[in-house]
Amino acid sequence: MMVLVINSGSSSIKYQLFNMKDRTVLASGLLEQIGEKASRLKHRTRQENGEMEALVQTDPVTDHIKGFDKILGVFASTGALKDSDELFGIGHRVVHGGETFHKPTLITSAVIETIREQIPLAPLHNPPNLLGIEVTFARRPDIPQVAVFDTAFHQTIPPQAYWYALPYELADSLHIRRYGFHGTSHQYVTKAAAQYLQRPLEELNLISCHLGNGASVCAVRDGKSVDTSMGMTPLEGLIMGTRSGDIDPAVIFYLSRKTGKSLDELDALLNKESGMKGICGVNDMREIEDLAAAGNERARLALDMYCYRLKKYIGMYAAALGRVDAVIFTAGVGENSDLVRARACADLSLLSIILDEQKNKEHASGLSEIQAKDSPTKVLVIPTNEELEIAEQTVLCIQGSENN
Amino acid sequence: MMVLVINSGSSSIKYQLFNMKDRTVLASGLLEQIGEKASRLKHRTRQENGEMEALVQTDPVTDHIKGFDKILGVFASTGALKDSDELFGIGHRVVHGGETFHKPTLITSAVIETIREQIPLAPLHNPPNLLGIEVTFARRPDIPQVAVFDTAFHQTIPPQAYWYALPYELADSLHIRRYGFHGTSHQYVTKAAAQYLQRPLEELNLISCHLGNGASVCAVRDGKSVDTSMGMTPLEGLIMGTRSGDIDPAVIFYLSRKTGKSLDELDALLNKESGMKGICGVNDMREIEDLAAAGNERARLALDMYCYRLKKYIGMYAAALGRVDAVIFTAGVGENSDLVRARACADLSLLSIILDEQKNKEHASGLSEIQAKDSPTKVLVIPTNEELEIAEQTVLCIQGSENN
Repeated sequence: MMVLVINSGSSSIKYQLFNMKDRTVLASGLLEQIGEKASRLKHRTRQENGEMEALVQTDPVTDHIKGFDKILGVFASTGALKDSDELFGIGHRVVHGGETFHKPTLITSAVIETIREQIPLAPLHNPPNLLGIEVTFARRPDIPQVAVFDTAFHQTIPPQAYWYALPYELADSLHIRRYGFHGTSHQYVTKAAAQYLQRPLEELNLISCHLGNGASVCAVRDGKSVDTSMGMTPLEGLIMGTRSGDIDPAVIFYLSRKTGKSLDELDALLNKESGMKGICGVNDMREIEDLAAAGNERARLALDMYCYRLKKYIGMYAAALGRVDAVIFTAGVGENSDLVRARACADLSLLSIILDEQKNKEHASGLSEIQAKDSPTKVLVIPTNEELEIAEQTVLCIQGSENN
Repeated sequence: MMVLVINSGSSSIKYQLFNMKDRTVLASGLLEQIGEKASRLKHRTRQENGEMEALVQTDPVTDHIKGFDKILGVFASTGALKDSDELFGIGHRVVHGGETFHKPTLITSAVIETIREQIPLAPLHNPPNLLGIEVTFARRPDIPQVAVFDTAFHQTIPPQAYWYALPYELADSLHIRRYGFHGTSHQYVTKAAAQYLQRPLEELNLISCHLGNGASVCAVRDGKSVDTSMGMTPLEGLIMGTRSGDIDPAVIFYLSRKTGKSLDELDALLNKESGMKGICGVNDMREIEDLAAAGNERARLALDMYCYRLKKYIGMYAAALGRVDAVIFTAGVGENSDLVRARACADLSLLSIILDEQKNKEHASGLSEIQAKDSPTKVLVIPTNEELEIAEQTVLCIQGSENN
C-alpha cells in the first residue's frame, strides 16, 4: 500500500512516498524554485540494502503541474513506484482548516472550495497548499486524495481557551479564535509517547513542545489537545526563528504611529524579521548556541528569552492540566538542543519536573526519556514524523470513506 | 505630617489627604466632570469619632487649576487642613515612567519635561497625570511634590522578561519593552504580606494578583518584581473589564483587513470594547457573577475565560519563580470575588497551592489567609492601598532629597 505525502509551498513541493505495510520511506525529495531557471530536484530513493540513494536534477520546472509530473517520473525511473496507479492515496498537508475541518478530509471539488474560503485566515500558508492540491487533484482525480490539517488536532480545545476576549459577535462572525497549528506533529508524538509509556493515550496528560523554526506548545488532557500556544495564526506564542510570538498587542499601534509602516509591513516584520533573527540576527539554533558560547551578548539574550518563554508555557499548561504525565520535546530544536531542554526544565521541581542532566546531554537520536529517577513527571525526547502521520491519516480517511 | 495624594484624570481629580503620623485619611474625594457644567465634588472628612462625613458640591469647575483650589478650599472650610502651608508634600500618581524613572522622583520643571517625553508610550494615561502635576506645581511650587510611577516597581524585571522578540535595534531605539503597571499596588501588598508573614520581604517569592477593572499579575522573587503580565502598555496580559489582554498579534492585521477599521479604532476596540465587556456586555464582576449564576451563557463564558487566563498566569509565574511562598489576591475583584479566587486556584495542588473553600468563602474584609492547612503555599487576600503607598513613597522621597 503506497501513499504519497505532499507539502506544497509557493515555489516548492516537498514529498515522501511511503510503503504503509512497514511504514518505510521508499522515496523522498524536495523540488525547489519552481517557475525559475534555477529550479532543482533533490530526490532520494531507498535501495534494497535500506540506504537512500541521492539524485539531483537541475532542469527548469515551469509550474506545479510540471513539478508533479516530474516527481511521478522520477519515481518511475528510479523504480520506487513504477506505475502511479499503484498509489493507494495522496495526503496533502494543509496549514489552516478553520472551523470547518475537524479531521482529515477526502478531497472533492467542494472541499477545495471550502479550503479556498479559509485563505483570509492563513494568507501566507493556505494558498500554496491549495495550489498543490488543485494540481494533483486535476491531474489524478482517480487517486483518492486527503487534506490533513495542522489545525484539526486542536479542535478539541474548549471555548474558555479558544476564544479571545474581543467583542463576541465580532469574533464569532469573523471566525477569530485560537485554532493552533503543528497538530499533526503534536498528535504524532503524543501517540508515540502513549506507545512508549505503554499506557492508553486517553489517560495521558501531556505537554508537547514542538520546537522547530516554527514552535508551539500543546497541552494534552486525556489524549486530547486542550490548549496550545499558537493562535488564530502561527504568530502567537513562543519565540520562533523569525516570529515574535506573544507581544503586547498595543506594540503594533505604537510601531505604526512611530514608524509610519503599513500594516502589511508590520505583519511581515513580526512574522519574518522578529523572533531569534530579530534579537540576534540569526535564526538557526545551533549557530545561536555557538555564538552564545563564544560570548555573543545578543545571542545569549535571544537564548535567555527563548528558554524563559518556553519554561513559562510549560508552567502555564501544568496549571491548566493539573496533572502532567510527561513533557515531550520534539522537532529540530526540541530533539537536538540539550541546552534548550535543560534551561526550559531548570528549577521546575515545584512542578514535579526534574531533568537528568547527563541523560539529557547524552541523548543522541530516537526516543529517550531524560528525567531524573526521582522526577514524578517523565521528560521525553521524541522525533516527530509529520509525513508519516499524514500518510497514516490519509489511509484511515480513505478506508473510512470506503466503509461509508 | 500631612501628605496629599493626587490621581489626576483628564476631567477628574481623585485625592486623599493623609496624616502620616498614624497613616489616617483626614479627607478624601473625587472631583468629576471638570470643564463641564455638571462638575461635582464628592468629599469626605474624618470626624473626631473616626467616622467620615460626606459633602457634595455641584457648582461648575472650569479647569484643573480651579479644581485644585477648590479642593484646598474644602480642606480649609471643613477643617481637615486649615492652611495648605502645613502640607509636608504632594504625591502624584503617574502611570508610565518609561525607562527613565526607576523610583519616586521629586518634581522639577526638568522632571515634568521628561514625563512629557514618555507620553507616546502611554498616550491614554500620562497626559491627564501630567496635567495634574503641572497645575499643582505651578500653583504651589513651594510644596515639595513627588511623582510616583506605576512602572517603577517593575524596573527590576530582567532583560529576558522585559524584551519582546522584535528586531533588537528597533525595539531598543523606540523603547519598546515590558514596563508593567500597578507597581504601587503590587509593592504595597507584597510589603503587607511580608509584615503579615513576619518574614523579610527580601526572602519572599510571591505571585501578586491585582484584579481590578484593570488587572495584572506580578512575579516577585526575593521581594523584587521579576515579571508581570502587563507590557509596554496596560493592554497585555489578563482579561480585564474592557481590555482584551493577550491576543494573537495577527488578529489586529486580520481585523484591519476584514473591517477596514483604522488603527486608532482598533486601539480603542481592544482597550475599551473588549475584555469582559466585549464577551458578555458587562464589565462589573459582581454583575457578571450574578448573570452567570442566573444561567447567562455569555457571562459564564466570560467568567470561564477570565479565571482560566488568571490560572495560567499563576502557573506561568510559578514556573518562573521555582518556589512560591504566597499567592496574593488584591483590588476589587481579588478582594471581593471568592468565586474568582476559587476558580483561579482550583486543581493547583501540583503547584502546591490548595485553597480552603470555607475560608475563601468566609473572607469578608481585611487581610486573611485562605489556603488549606496542608497547602505548602499560602494564599492571602490583602486589601491594597495605592494612595497610602504613594503617600509613604512621597515622604521617603522628600526626606531622601533633604538628606542629599
